[in-house]
Amino acid sequence: SFSVKGTSADYVYAPFRIYKGRAALSLSPVLPTFTKLESGGLVVGRSGVVMLKFTPAIGERKYDWEKRQVFALSATEVGSLISLGPNDSCEFFHDPSMQSSNAGQVRKSLSIKSHADGSGYMVSLTVVNNLLKTKENFIVPVTAAEFAVMKTACSFALPHIMGWDRLMSNMPTGVGVGRQQSKVVPQLLDEWDR
Amino acid sequence: SFSVKGTSADYVYAPFRIYKGRAALSLSPVLPTFTKLESGGLVVGRSGVVMLKFTPAIGERKYDWEKRQVFALSATEVGSLISLGPNDSCEFFHDPSMQSSNAGQVRKSLSIKSHADGSGYMVSLTVVNNLLKTKENFIVPVTAAEFAVMKTACSFALPHIMGWDRLMSNMPTGVGVGRQQSKVVPQLLDEWDR
Amino acid sequence: SFSVKGTSADYVYAPFRIYKGRAALSLSPVLPTFTKLESGGLVVGRSGVVMLKFTPAIGERKYDWEKRQVFALSATEVGSLISLGPNDSCEFFHDPSMQSSNAGQVRKSLSIKSHADGSGYMVSLTVVNNLLKTKENFIVPVTAAEFAVMKTACSFALPHIMGWDRLMSNMPTGVGVGRQQSKVVPQLLDEWDR
Amino acid sequence: SFSVKGTSADYVYAPFRIYKGRAALSLSPVLPTFTKLESGGLVVGRSGVVMLKFTPAIGERKYDWEKRQVFALSATEVGSLISLGPNDSCEFFHDPSMQSSNAGQVRKSLSIKSHADGSGYMVSLTVVNNLLKTKENFIVPVTAAEFAVMKTACSFALPHIMGWDRLMSNMPTGVGVGRQQSKVVPQLLDEWDR
Repeated sequence: SFSVKGTSADYVYAPFRIYKGRAALSLSPVLPTFTKLESGGLVVGRSGVVMLKFTPAIGERKYDWEKRQVFALSATEVGSLISLGPNDSCEFFHDPSMQSSNAGQVRKSLSIKSHADGSGYMVSLTVVNNLLKTKENFIVPVTAAEFAVMKTACSFALPHIMGWDRLMSNMPTGVGVGRQQSKVVPQLLDEWDR
Repeated sequence: SFSVKGTSADYVYAPFRIYKGRAALSLSPVLPTFTKLESGGLVVGRSGVVMLKFTPAIGERKYDWEKRQVFALSATEVGSLISLGPNDSCEFFHDPSMQSSNAGQVRKSLSIKSHADGSGYMVSLTVVNNLLKTKENFIVPVTAAEFAVMKTACSFALPHIMGWDRLMSNMPTGVGVGRQQSKVVPQLLDEWDR
Repeated sequence: SFSVKGTSADYVYAPFRIYKGRAALSLSPVLPTFTKLESGGLVVGRSGVVMLKFTPAIGERKYDWEKRQVFALSATEVGSLISLGPNDSCEFFHDPSMQSSNAGQVRKSLSIKSHADGSGYMVSLTVVNNLLKTKENFIVPVTAAEFAVMKTACSFALPHIMGWDRLMSNMPTGVGVGRQQSKVVPQLLDEWDR
Repeated sequence: SFSVKGTSADYVYAPFRIYKGRAALSLSPVLPTFTKLESGGLVVGRSGVVMLKFTPAIGERKYDWEKRQVFALSATEVGSLISLGPNDSCEFFHDPSMQSSNAGQVRKSLSIKSHADGSGYMVSLTVVNNLLKTKENFIVPVTAAEFAVMKTACSFALPHIMGWDRLMSNMPTGVGVGRQQSKVVPQLLDEWDR
């Protein structure tokens, strides 16, 4: 496994941080969780995400961490982000209370708009909370270089938040065609064997 | 090795799923199998694939898993998919009974056609079975963002389904030029040594 | 961990070297350091970089390693480098004594300028030292092929110098949603659970 | 380490093979070798390559493995290959006896020429051996999809043949800034600390 020898660290904090005048933006991947099946296999439980955190500035290089708001990008939203061209824009809408009695009361929208000259993007989050009668807005200008880091890091993270690195890593350690075949779902063999 | 410490999971299920109105599409990589040579080396037995599974809808958000059909993309077909531009299309034909007495009786064709406006692709599978006198058709519209996930995940998976991650991982753990050289096929040395 | 079994090597030297007539340029990644938190987690201490080293030539294929100068590319500067188009240029400025009493006394500037015909880049480092009254200049022409190696290697290295490979690798080895949830910061759950 | 648990395999054979009418082409990465320094570090000894092997056809789907010729792509040549556009071409020349008394007697040239319609490439190897008075020529047409596999697999392999995966993997397992700093070459600290 990838675990660090000699340490018992449970979590690693390595967000990519962009500190700007009005707000700070940080990105970090959150891995999926897995549930063990009776058959012995693992199935993805909660999907992984790339978590964006926005924090408002309250002075020069000072940020109010209590007022942080988060936006969790799904695999498909990460797909949007990494395929964004220098003149493209995109917008995502989340309802954190979806499928609860509070559905529709809080609306989050994340917008990524390219600058007209291709020099970067304006990333903004708006959170409208009808329960608290609040509306918060965070704006972080992101340079083309910073966005290149976001794209490369998100492309690296994407297979991991999908759990595909586990598909790779949990390969049977035994060797030989025979052992492998015995585990193949029979209905797949006709196609696989072509 | 990559195996998960503390678990004995044999398989990890982490397909990328696209649920649409008429059918669902899922992708997952299937690793190659290896056979041990008498010399102690490993050689790829069955090649890895990226498995596509199509399932027809039978109501709102309900799919008939019994009627699932699969299509296994080879490394070269994955190469086609990941190099597809926003206005490109491609089509693959498989005969799952090739080289058997039923050759030609079942024909599968997978088509990936870009929308005219570059907003995504129409992915469809047709399975014609002359033995059962059936013809099935699955159509899944895929957005540009979903296709970006497919491309990134397939690019990640490609070296793994080819077995190249094993080439990397099985590097001799010994250190020093001498030990390495003794294992090099002599005829390669003139080129390698240049 | 990735460490090599059977060896106790602490460091691996594998710079990518470009030897040219007037100077040599080498690149190698330097990983971030981590600090252990009381909570048991790890946090990035010093960020990782891609270290560029310039060495002046003092004869045919002879370089004066004593006169070497270094320039450490941050994650965002690596983002600039890997997103550089064939006709693009960029320039970075560093003050190695920033935030000390010698601030402003030594200025380093790295310039990457594309050739007009797209055949490669001119990479140059200038180091002006007001304390020593010196000005050094290193110029290394880099072909398109060499720059492609630099871009691919830096793209590979970027998630590692950011520490994102650790985020991936230190995944909890336990299985099951329950255990995972207990570690999630409560305020994140509403977004994560959407 | 990446080694396969429960096996003692020394080598993994997983070449990417392209069989065509007149010749077959296979690609496989060859990892660098490392030499242990007295200081305990590892330094790259022989650089890694991507090995191309050409085999002439002697009938339908029959190849004469005795007449195989090889061409080892260096990191920079791999950089050329992976940055080749759909209408680009490149050519490399090797002298396997360079720096020996036979220098210049055997000349190998590898040519990758794009088809005019962008549908793929013609890959050919010519080996002129003045000692044996022979000239061999191998021609393999490569489709765009096959070339996409070559590019993706070579991009994956590049950091590994450079030894950069080892730079990543051999990270100190200890935690904390103090321990790390004690191993940093002092002259680097001023830049690194900026």
